[in-house]
Amino acid sequence: MLPDMEHLTITVGGVVRELPTIPVGNVGRVPLVEFIGDSELTNAAAQEMLALIPAGTEILLTVVTNALPLTHEISDRSGIPYVVARKKRRTYMQDPLIQQVPTLTLGVGETLWLDGPHAARLRGKRVTIVQDVVSSGGTAQALTRFVERSGGTLLGYVAAFNQGSAALPVRALQTLPQHL
Amino acid sequence: MLPDMEHLTITVGGVVRELPTIPVGNVGRVPLVEFIGDSELTNAAAQEMLALIPAGTEILLTVVTNALPLTHEISDRSGIPYVVARKKRRTYMQDPLIQQVPTLTLGVGETLWLDGPHAARLRGKRVTIVQDVVSSGGTAQALTRFVERSGGTLLGYVAAFNQGSAALPVRALQTLPQHL
Repeated sequence: MLPDMEHLTITVGGVVRELPTIPVGNVGRVPLVEFIGDSELTNAAAQEMLALIPAGTEILLTVVTNALPLTHEISDRSGIPYVVARKKRRTYMQDPLIQQVPTLTLGVGETLWLDGPHAARLRGKRVTIVQDVVSSGGTAQALTRFVERSGGTLLGYVAAFNQGSAALPVRALQTLPQHL
Repeated sequence: MLPDMEHLTITVGGVVRELPTIPVGNVGRVPLVEFIGDSELTNAAAQEMLALIPAGTEILLTVVTNALPLTHEISDRSGIPYVVARKKRRTYMQDPLIQQVPTLTLGVGETLWLDGPHAARLRGKRVTIVQDVVSSGGTAQALTRFVERSGGTLLGYVAAFNQGSAALPVRALQTLPQHL
């Protein structure tokens, strides 16, 4: 099915969704993927993504919020534990690692926080980074630095969707258009 | 097992965890429950919480972030869909409902956002609110307003842990001490 301007049809493991598209500046419309609130799509993507996880992965690393149910489900199905970086400092954090997300614009980039005890779980481990959607790759780069700074070894990047020009070798189920 | 000051031992569906405790002001130490990054605890709690969901529930409502994998798992196991409120406005939101979290202190309370298309999913439905931990009940009150404003009917409150003096009739697996 050819996309109209308002929707983009995707199929993941037999689950079909009409993604809404959101107007962004002058570039056109960007498809919006929401795993949150959609168990069926989450489970279908998690199941398909199992095959993308590099052999030997000992722990998964992701970031809040959209990839959370997805990563939980991948962890559950693969038996590989996972660690989550946050986008806000939490009062309970102990010696968190702090990492700026590189941004292409001159605006202030997002800051990611990895609580100390969670960083310790990456130490000496073979780590795969999991995301729902990779677009510019800035978040993936920040997560990569967390792996390095924690003393882990990065095995690769896995995402449900690749949407953009990320220079990173991301293994994704599908490539989405950057804009329609 | 009696709690020491640094940890609190809990057992959920056969899964045992030593919760760290966090010093908070002068009141003492507060136990910290993290479902994120812990598939085993998430699954055990979700399974036990199935029995707490009021009969006739047609849709679940929760809020980011900590309850996300838990609510996904409950949704998955019960077949009941779920909707998620956010703590930040997202650029793609359409006619979101906005609700302030009542706060006991004079500080500025948190603001919750429910995207219009998600609010529409609650309309005319019997809704149960799901949280990981209920403490003051402020978040539960804000979610209650979302149900009312969306035209849904609230059936009840379900949480893994009740921790505090919430005046709400929360069905929880366990009550945690407010502080140690």
